[in-house]
Amino acid sequence: MTTRTARVEAEAAVATLMRAMGVKARRAARTLAMAPDAQKAAALRAAAAGLRARVADILTANAGDVAAARARGTSGSFLDRLMLNEARIEAMAAGLEDIAALADPVGRVLARFQRPNGLSIERVATPLGVIGVIFESRPNVTADAGALCLKAGNAAILRGGSESAQSSRLIHACLVAGLKQAGLPEDAIQLVPTQDRAAVGEILQGLNGNIDVVVPRGGKSLVARVQNEARVPVFAHLEGIVHMYVDRAADPAMALDLIINGKLRRTGVCGATETLLVDARAPQLLAPLVKGLLDKGCAVRGDSATQKVDARVTPATEADWSTEYLDAVISVKLVDGLDAALAHIDHYGSHHTDAIVTGDQAAAARFLAEVDSAIVLHNASTQFADGGEFGFGAEIGIATGRMHARGPVGVEQLTSFNYRVHGDGQTRP
Amino acid sequence: MTTRTARVEAEAAVATLMRAMGVKARRAARTLAMAPDAQKAAALRAAAAGLRARVADILTANAGDVAAARARGTSGSFLDRLMLNEARIEAMAAGLEDIAALADPVGRVLARFQRPNGLSIERVATPLGVIGVIFESRPNVTADAGALCLKAGNAAILRGGSESAQSSRLIHACLVAGLKQAGLPEDAIQLVPTQDRAAVGEILQGLNGNIDVVVPRGGKSLVARVQNEARVPVFAHLEGIVHMYVDRAADPAMALDLIINGKLRRTGVCGATETLLVDARAPQLLAPLVKGLLDKGCAVRGDSATQKVDARVTPATEADWSTEYLDAVISVKLVDGLDAALAHIDHYGSHHTDAIVTGDQAAAARFLAEVDSAIVLHNASTQFADGGEFGFGAEIGIATGRMHARGPVGVEQLTSFNYRVHGDGQTRP
Repeated sequence: MTTRTARVEAEAAVATLMRAMGVKARRAARTLAMAPDAQKAAALRAAAAGLRARVADILTANAGDVAAARARGTSGSFLDRLMLNEARIEAMAAGLEDIAALADPVGRVLARFQRPNGLSIERVATPLGVIGVIFESRPNVTADAGALCLKAGNAAILRGGSESAQSSRLIHACLVAGLKQAGLPEDAIQLVPTQDRAAVGEILQGLNGNIDVVVPRGGKSLVARVQNEARVPVFAHLEGIVHMYVDRAADPAMALDLIINGKLRRTGVCGATETLLVDARAPQLLAPLVKGLLDKGCAVRGDSATQKVDARVTPATEADWSTEYLDAVISVKLVDGLDAALAHIDHYGSHHTDAIVTGDQAAAARFLAEVDSAIVLHNASTQFADGGEFGFGAEIGIATGRMHARGPVGVEQLTSFNYRVHGDGQTRP
Repeated sequence: MTTRTARVEAEAAVATLMRAMGVKARRAARTLAMAPDAQKAAALRAAAAGLRARVADILTANAGDVAAARARGTSGSFLDRLMLNEARIEAMAAGLEDIAALADPVGRVLARFQRPNGLSIERVATPLGVIGVIFESRPNVTADAGALCLKAGNAAILRGGSESAQSSRLIHACLVAGLKQAGLPEDAIQLVPTQDRAAVGEILQGLNGNIDVVVPRGGKSLVARVQNEARVPVFAHLEGIVHMYVDRAADPAMALDLIINGKLRRTGVCGATETLLVDARAPQLLAPLVKGLLDKGCAVRGDSATQKVDARVTPATEADWSTEYLDAVISVKLVDGLDAALAHIDHYGSHHTDAIVTGDQAAAARFLAEVDSAIVLHNASTQFADGGEFGFGAEIGIATGRMHARGPVGVEQLTSFNYRVHGDGQTRP
């Protein structure tokens, strides 16, 4: 058999396997849609108990994943994302319990209206159906994503990276044991058992209508592949080119606090500020912000005005304005007031999160209304771009698309709705 | 030049044209997103006045379309959809004024929550962006769809059928004149000027990211093509296999009223009942419903039990259970109670609209919760499946997908949202 033929056969086998998973997921989703919240919560609490009971096994499995990654010569931050310890497993278990304790997002009456003919119409939250989650090295995504999908009454098909395969398999086993213990279908949360890349392609094609939405969790190249290839809706953001605009009416001390926090609290999160825009009508605001960042160890790449402020500033190139550093690096530019800031964000932004610092309420109102981003903030750190900080309990990610979910995607955003019409015999004239 | 080369060049020209329309639409959408409601309403009222002022011109253009269609030997109902008269033009103008008078869907505060750290977070309705509408013979869709998109702050790219091209062009000119008069960008509502089918393909590919959603308005083959080929989200329903289940606890007189109205009030609408399921635990309910339908001129295709009721009943084939007749024809079946009705609907239904007739509140609650359709009704005619009947003012269509919009799609469903966070200097710990 030629290599080519072998590949074709392998892909056909993966397609068959994945489509069968889709059919099972759809069947499980029908049961889940009707499952009372107590049952879903019981499954999640049982899974949490299972994680705690199997800490040693999970650590052993994870050590295998880590050793294999080390043998391949993978890097520090990658290993850090992959590595589990007792605290991280406990955090995973506690996370499952937190999701269990959230209010049931299914069955919420989102709207209710009475018609003149006596019909009463309700819009009621229902599950979305089947959610495909494609992730990379973090094994905890298995627990988080599976639990969020379950809480919202959805079946999940999880496809983790090969690097975390052994860890994910054990975590998944705990979820399945929890489902079983609570009397829910074990197919409610399935983990793709093959590392063949064709499996991802099958999910992106929608498994014959048995995937309703795909959520990629990982780096930019994964998200880009998913967004380009998916034939089903995707909840994702490609990148967070996050701006903070410091207006002439900004309080200088507040602006300094906010840029230090927005840029440096954690540099690797999608809500980290990447570009600072300062109002040229108040040029005195610029130097303290730039020096403050430099003094905290942040590299500053600036336009000519910014370069004059401090010798440590290096020149920004055109590419800097559209770069998500995810590191202690920031680009800084003086702009001609609010309109110029809006134009810059419109041109270079990624529709994720942007903030204004100002004491001028009218300027703030314009910024919040005109910046076309999922999250816009006034006088607050951009690092609040997070479902937990929004009070959503937990999030499966942050979406920048305009359809269905936008911003932090929590359990409520993982639901759909239908209309329920209550009559007493009304006919339409 | 070969025919093949000519075709390639024609397609390239269409692609260039369409993508330029996309760029212009996106630019217009930015302005529309900020436009006050009064300005959008003024544009629509001016367009309505324009339609009334140009009745004679529109009738002349329409006569040209109708003559061309007749020359091609097209059929009665097709011609009826194509044909305009003074009353229909007046209805179009009044429709624009009705949409103008709706509450502004943009800027609605959909949710507001206060965080313990003092942050106030609002979820605010924003436009979706650019909407592509692909329609067939009805020229009035130009006005309806263009107006609904505009009211929700969206730019529209309208692609009508060749049959109605002359009529649509004049109606579109009235919309553009209205936009101009109100000081809004003329590119806010664009009509595709070419009848080349490649234009539809370009819209379905998303015009380089400049189409956010596509709405097909037309027959099943158009919707199927759009659903199969679109690389962007689609608001649509392929068909309405609408069921009415008459439970053993139904009031017989109410059930008769509801089936006559649900099936026969208008047979060509997507909310028309296509299948009647009767509870086998109350077989006496069957005959009066079947005879009532037959006596009103409705053909009945029944299972063996139904055939025994009346000699006029013809046997139903397997295909009947998944046929949308859109005509005075109904399929009828005796089912073993609620569970069997739910199973039948799950198997044969189209997730559009389904109803139960019963005096048993528990049975009704189960039906409304378990039938996975956009609209589910208890003791009401299925013909209420309509945005106007829901109080939405007008609808661009009915969607059966689970993402974003489901059921009647009115101006509120043509919006997205973002999060606006108000702080006073909060940093994240």
